[in-house]
Amino acid sequence: MERALPGSPDQPVLLTPGPLTTSATVRQAMLRDWGSRDPAFIALNARVRERLVALAGAQGSHVCVPLQGSGTFVVEAMLGTLVPKDGRLLVLANGAYGQRMATMARYHGRRVEVLETAEDQPNDVAALERALLRDDAITHVAAVHCETTSGILNPIKAIAAATARHGRRLLIDAMSAFGALPLDARHVPFDALAASANKCLEGVPGLGFALARKEALAAAKGNAPALSLDLHDQWQAMERNGQWRFTPPTHVLAALEQALIEHEQEGGVAGRGARYRENRRILVDGMRALGFETLLPDALQASIIVTFKMPADPRFAFEAFYDRLRARGYPGKLTVAPSFRIGCIGRIGPAEMQGALAAIRAVLKEMGVASGRPARAAA
Amino acid sequence: MERALPGSPDQPVLLTPGPLTTSATVRQAMLRDWGSRDPAFIALNARVRERLVALAGAQGSHVCVPLQGSGTFVVEAMLGTLVPKDGRLLVLANGAYGQRMATMARYHGRRVEVLETAEDQPNDVAALERALLRDDAITHVAAVHCETTSGILNPIKAIAAATARHGRRLLIDAMSAFGALPLDARHVPFDALAASANKCLEGVPGLGFALARKEALAAAKGNAPALSLDLHDQWQAMERNGQWRFTPPTHVLAALEQALIEHEQEGGVAGRGARYRENRRILVDGMRALGFETLLPDALQASIIVTFKMPADPRFAFEAFYDRLRARGYPGKLTVAPSFRIGCIGRIGPAEMQGALAAIRAVLKEMGVASGRPARAAA
Repeated sequence: MERALPGSPDQPVLLTPGPLTTSATVRQAMLRDWGSRDPAFIALNARVRERLVALAGAQGSHVCVPLQGSGTFVVEAMLGTLVPKDGRLLVLANGAYGQRMATMARYHGRRVEVLETAEDQPNDVAALERALLRDDAITHVAAVHCETTSGILNPIKAIAAATARHGRRLLIDAMSAFGALPLDARHVPFDALAASANKCLEGVPGLGFALARKEALAAAKGNAPALSLDLHDQWQAMERNGQWRFTPPTHVLAALEQALIEHEQEGGVAGRGARYRENRRILVDGMRALGFETLLPDALQASIIVTFKMPADPRFAFEAFYDRLRARGYPGKLTVAPSFRIGCIGRIGPAEMQGALAAIRAVLKEMGVASGRPARAAA
Repeated sequence: MERALPGSPDQPVLLTPGPLTTSATVRQAMLRDWGSRDPAFIALNARVRERLVALAGAQGSHVCVPLQGSGTFVVEAMLGTLVPKDGRLLVLANGAYGQRMATMARYHGRRVEVLETAEDQPNDVAALERALLRDDAITHVAAVHCETTSGILNPIKAIAAATARHGRRLLIDAMSAFGALPLDARHVPFDALAASANKCLEGVPGLGFALARKEALAAAKGNAPALSLDLHDQWQAMERNGQWRFTPPTHVLAALEQALIEHEQEGGVAGRGARYRENRRILVDGMRALGFETLLPDALQASIIVTFKMPADPRFAFEAFYDRLRARGYPGKLTVAPSFRIGCIGRIGPAEMQGALAAIRAVLKEMGVASGRPARAAA
């Protein structure tokens, strides 16, 4: 029975929110070399940029600026390029990725303030409004669409509306949401968002991109703290000749184009989001049947990654649980006790989620854990 | 006859110094997904780091810190992390890559001075000595081992000796040389060098690495202008748990390990360098037979990329020449008139070089160009 389910130590089903499982066709797109200054590659790059702008309904208003490196690199490039030296940044944080944006701003010598909520609480829009009323010097607000520390969905529409109402500019870390959770520039005002090839778009890791309002980017010359992270310069150079300033990850970009084609074939953001919601439903239902409880109530839970409370059973040792799951081909995401996380994204569906649950059931049985019920569980 | 030679518009032989032609087995190493926090990937990362340190004879003295992004990213991370805020950098420049290091230091707000020579002249070691004697405030010297703007080999041993003699610290852009031109840390003192997966190591683009002296890196906390480019932090995090701080380009790293295995199988730096020298010999002999002249005398010419003077024949139009060569599967490197460049590196050998020469001969004939002889050619 179990042999028929996907997942093996050699071809694992990654239950992590990046790097995640990709399709074989996406990986096969990397079997060719590209000259980065050849017309065929320049055309490929232009097609990818156009597709990404279109996914956010941002044609005409925003431009796509891709950047080498992980998602963190493009988030830092976005903040470093768009917040001017005399700007002031307010970061909404309820997890590691929000806090990381504040750290970046401090590296850049920018004035920064953090408006924090607990990891299981969404960003507080009323507190944001009060902060903007109180401090005229705040020029930019930064928020995380889905904070993968917990998997919580932040109220990005309300954050955008409040920020715009007070005449400030919004920068969004859309890393783990872009391509699966809707975000439409025609209805959600933002100066820039940053995302990556290797989250819900299901490309391989190695590049990120910003979608930035043209006027904001045009005004950002001279802000960036580093040449490599200068999105204004990257954009200007690409506008001139369609080329990247510095050697692009050509194979990774070719894989991203294939991933975007497959994203469209699945029905775009709506289709991708629907599959992830179904993955989450199967996972959460199955885990609850085993006694596990989610950290977040369903209303705050994005279909990206789910945090489960640690079982109270003393026979449940997380390291052993993780190692045994990995040995069965289902590596998940380590986190700080007393919780752990399992991702719903990547080229995985019902068969993989059922396979993960079967592996979890088997491992619990091996460990002699009777139930996933956490300590101090609700009645 | 020509059909038997490699190179086609669909599978071109890249005659560029990055992105360059890679082996099929290196690209096939990207057909598997990796969880970046899994023991198997952590072990792969450790093996790659050890191999890179060994290639420079730097075991025990230096550590390898890999970084996401293109080679430029890791050069900038090296400068930004190792030159302290109150440091002063002297850059030896005879081309675009030297000048780019000075640009980076200016981004970082560091004091920087450029000691320039013409593009066809090596760095001037006597002038370096005079500058170091004159200015006690200079803490670091930066140099480019092989400047791909022209393909010139700089006197890195003499530069290192002079810098060490005056008690200053050397940072090397070894991008286009590492793995093919010898550089041994036991004989050439340097605080750090930066190189990438996609030059003479023949991996795919998407990551670079620094080899840095442990003491220098340990003393560099708090210098970096950006979180993403902080090599001290990247190193410290990797020492703790063997993992990258932010999502690594997993497929690119797997390809680099395969490339390093193939590098060793070819006989390491000596074997790789020998193939490139033979590629250069075939290319330069063949081009000279067609009347072309090299920009550099043979003694200054590294076996990485060769610059040819533009032919005087008015029927020779470079854009058309490049387009037609590309159509035959041999894209080269555009450059500023009155010269153009052809690379010798990547998974190419005599057959590819002969194929390139055959394509060049055919294109010249199509264009009606009788000889590659430049204007004002030497008698």
